[in-house]
Amino acid sequence: MAKAIDLPRNESGIQTAMGVLKQQFGDRFQTSASVREQHGHTTTWIANQMPDAVVFAKSTQEVSDIVKVCAAHKVPVIAFGTGTSLEGHVNAAAGGISIDLSQMNKIINVHSEDLDCVIQPGVTREDLNTHLRDQGLFFPIDPGANASLGGMAATRASGTNAVRYGTMKDNVLALEAVMADGRIIRTAQRAKKSSAGYDLTRLLVGSEGTLGIITEITLKLQGIPEAISSARCSFPSVDAACQTVMQVIQFGIPVARIELLDTLQVQACNAYSGLDLPETPLLLLEFHGSDAGVVEQAETFGAIAEEFGGTGYTATTSTEERNALWKARHNAYWASLGLRPGAKGISTDVCVPISRLAEIVVAAQERLEELGFLAPIVGHVGDGNFHSLVLVDENSPEEMAKAEDYVSWLAETAISMDGTCTGEHGVGQGKMPYLVKELGEATDVMIAIKRALDPDNILNPGKVVTV
Amino acid sequence: MAKAIDLPRNESGIQTAMGVLKQQFGDRFQTSASVREQHGHTTTWIANQMPDAVVFAKSTQEVSDIVKVCAAHKVPVIAFGTGTSLEGHVNAAAGGISIDLSQMNKIINVHSEDLDCVIQPGVTREDLNTHLRDQGLFFPIDPGANASLGGMAATRASGTNAVRYGTMKDNVLALEAVMADGRIIRTAQRAKKSSAGYDLTRLLVGSEGTLGIITEITLKLQGIPEAISSARCSFPSVDAACQTVMQVIQFGIPVARIELLDTLQVQACNAYSGLDLPETPLLLLEFHGSDAGVVEQAETFGAIAEEFGGTGYTATTSTEERNALWKARHNAYWASLGLRPGAKGISTDVCVPISRLAEIVVAAQERLEELGFLAPIVGHVGDGNFHSLVLVDENSPEEMAKAEDYVSWLAETAISMDGTCTGEHGVGQGKMPYLVKELGEATDVMIAIKRALDPDNILNPGKVVTV
Repeated sequence: MAKAIDLPRNESGIQTAMGVLKQQFGDRFQTSASVREQHGHTTTWIANQMPDAVVFAKSTQEVSDIVKVCAAHKVPVIAFGTGTSLEGHVNAAAGGISIDLSQMNKIINVHSEDLDCVIQPGVTREDLNTHLRDQGLFFPIDPGANASLGGMAATRASGTNAVRYGTMKDNVLALEAVMADGRIIRTAQRAKKSSAGYDLTRLLVGSEGTLGIITEITLKLQGIPEAISSARCSFPSVDAACQTVMQVIQFGIPVARIELLDTLQVQACNAYSGLDLPETPLLLLEFHGSDAGVVEQAETFGAIAEEFGGTGYTATTSTEERNALWKARHNAYWASLGLRPGAKGISTDVCVPISRLAEIVVAAQERLEELGFLAPIVGHVGDGNFHSLVLVDENSPEEMAKAEDYVSWLAETAISMDGTCTGEHGVGQGKMPYLVKELGEATDVMIAIKRALDPDNILNPGKVVTV
Repeated sequence: MAKAIDLPRNESGIQTAMGVLKQQFGDRFQTSASVREQHGHTTTWIANQMPDAVVFAKSTQEVSDIVKVCAAHKVPVIAFGTGTSLEGHVNAAAGGISIDLSQMNKIINVHSEDLDCVIQPGVTREDLNTHLRDQGLFFPIDPGANASLGGMAATRASGTNAVRYGTMKDNVLALEAVMADGRIIRTAQRAKKSSAGYDLTRLLVGSEGTLGIITEITLKLQGIPEAISSARCSFPSVDAACQTVMQVIQFGIPVARIELLDTLQVQACNAYSGLDLPETPLLLLEFHGSDAGVVEQAETFGAIAEEFGGTGYTATTSTEERNALWKARHNAYWASLGLRPGAKGISTDVCVPISRLAEIVVAAQERLEELGFLAPIVGHVGDGNFHSLVLVDENSPEEMAKAEDYVSWLAETAISMDGTCTGEHGVGQGKMPYLVKELGEATDVMIAIKRALDPDNILNPGKVVTV
């Protein structure tokens, strides 16, 4: 575990607020160690910092009530969805109250005629898609975990479909949020576009609970495509695979997904899922469109891949074969852990302009080899975004130090290529040092905004920027 | 002309700053009445409020220098591109200095392999597209005027292609901006996606020069499609045309453009452009894709249109025919003015969820008839966005009052339908009262941000929100 930095605690305020909240929320106010630990940990590699209590909220008004109590006593408030963030987003660096939003999980309204829906923040992406399926609709953003949509909005999540459908920033139409003083605001109406004032929707998306707590979300939806085709293609090198991706994007093929698995990841998937994929870099693809359209896309891709030495290219519209292929991709994390049983997987991600993708992936592989790590690489490469899963013995200080060195090196290399230190995992605690390196004085503007909207620094303190 | 509200002037500060700037900028510091009038007027229907002086900046550093002088003396600074905004965006409500950015018109870099470019804010959209054409690329956002891209970013502009390619918020990757104290910041790197901190890019897009002055823009580009097909189809009623649009969007046809012209607009275009289009509501369309793809899109559209009584449907891939069709659309403004020679055209726009589109367009037509106005309606209807061009005698106080009543009624009706008071024209001065009606307490959050980033209220004061 990497060390987490503790911030000063407002002990008396915390005790007073806890007394008030216990009275107000009864059974839904919890302080057991297991509940607190679960709410301070998440899937991060940063050491747990437990909140002092967890309150399970059932309505926007309740969230507002909790925030008002905490504001009155200057006590930290941390919004919690499913706890699947990766950079220590929900660690309670200064203690305080975790607001668990998982019981705010109603789908309030689906406006199928407008291709949008209004939901509470605790709805998970899988639940939403299950609900939508009968209406021929889906919500495309798919981070690895079955995250809550509130958490996905708060961290500006994306996933495998982002190359075609964008990230959360592109798919949230409006938010309701509770601000640091307990006020409830709505950032926008349901119109598809608007030029009405500052874009508070996009300001809250990605603010990681530090500017407001999202209590309702209006999302854009997509019609389920008439046809879906999946494909895979093996390449002689990462460079050849990345060159293919660049051509596909430049050619304007509207790929819905284009995922890179490096050789090590393919080996892991073969072992874990009982497959016999050629053990060289692999691209997995998905095409959405009309019946004729997906065939055309697949053919055009095939022609490009061939130019770069792609082999074993197969495309299919069979749902069964498609599911088998993507199941292997979705199990990549578990498959990777199998490469080194007992190891912890540290997942870190960066994103670069696509012209630099091959270069940084190759450099990352070399670096990992130098450091002696087993660390498969998978990537949403259509956007220039990829992940390293570094397998470490978390009880070995040397290994942890080397892993931290790698994370630093990767972030800084991405920044030096005009890329970002975090493509889709957010900043949390883990990427704070690199945010400053990436954006310089712009982080002072972020701090000014944070101070203006949360003068007592009670909303998820110690994340994103240092105030 | 509608009256503009004057704000208090800081007379001594203005005189001092002018003295300093005159010395620094020589010939590029101008105070002639004609230059000042041109920089305070624009194409708005709100009375001119001239700045005290105009400085023609040539670099980011110069913009920073000007802002520093103005900050030191608490003098208003108003960024000026081409002056084509519609809601009084560049009026100098408290006097001050207009910074003309039209000489900052370099295309700094086109990264064709990454489908992006870096430009100065004075580059116009037509100049950019002329520059890009040889590389097989284009920038899709097309407000009516040949606006500067800095102005387009600052007002969150969109246009006819937004249904497919989004608005400026979706097509700006990063900005360089000069803040209220003269600091220069960069909001993001060039990666296609990022979850690195607060989305300052989107905060500045649409902030209308009130939070910072945009001095450099990184834009996403698109490949020119392999095939483009245009089409037109007439409908028995606005309702039938809007129902068709709804179906097209729900069906997921990736239309690049879908524009509604009401009967009055068609009559105006026939007269102006010598056409003989049936004088009923008309949809104009454009499809982008592969050769086979655009044919398929056009066929699917045709089948939907027929269900709703569409007639005279013709689709063409001939560039000549396409240009003739779209030229008539682009001349809609001039054609409309021909309906009432000598009249002023007041252009106002709203945007609603698409399910309410037919209802609000029909209601608007009825309202305009009651008020006795000639006022054609055109709309980027795939997004639920449309414009009324109200033809008024601007010297008639009665007509102006009635026109203002209509603008109010339309904004409030759109808001009541979960829509926005401004789809793409921004807030400026003209839509300020409705912004509060639309977003309530969220405007207080906007004010808090404005105060934090511009404590002396020198950046384009009197626009967007009242501080």
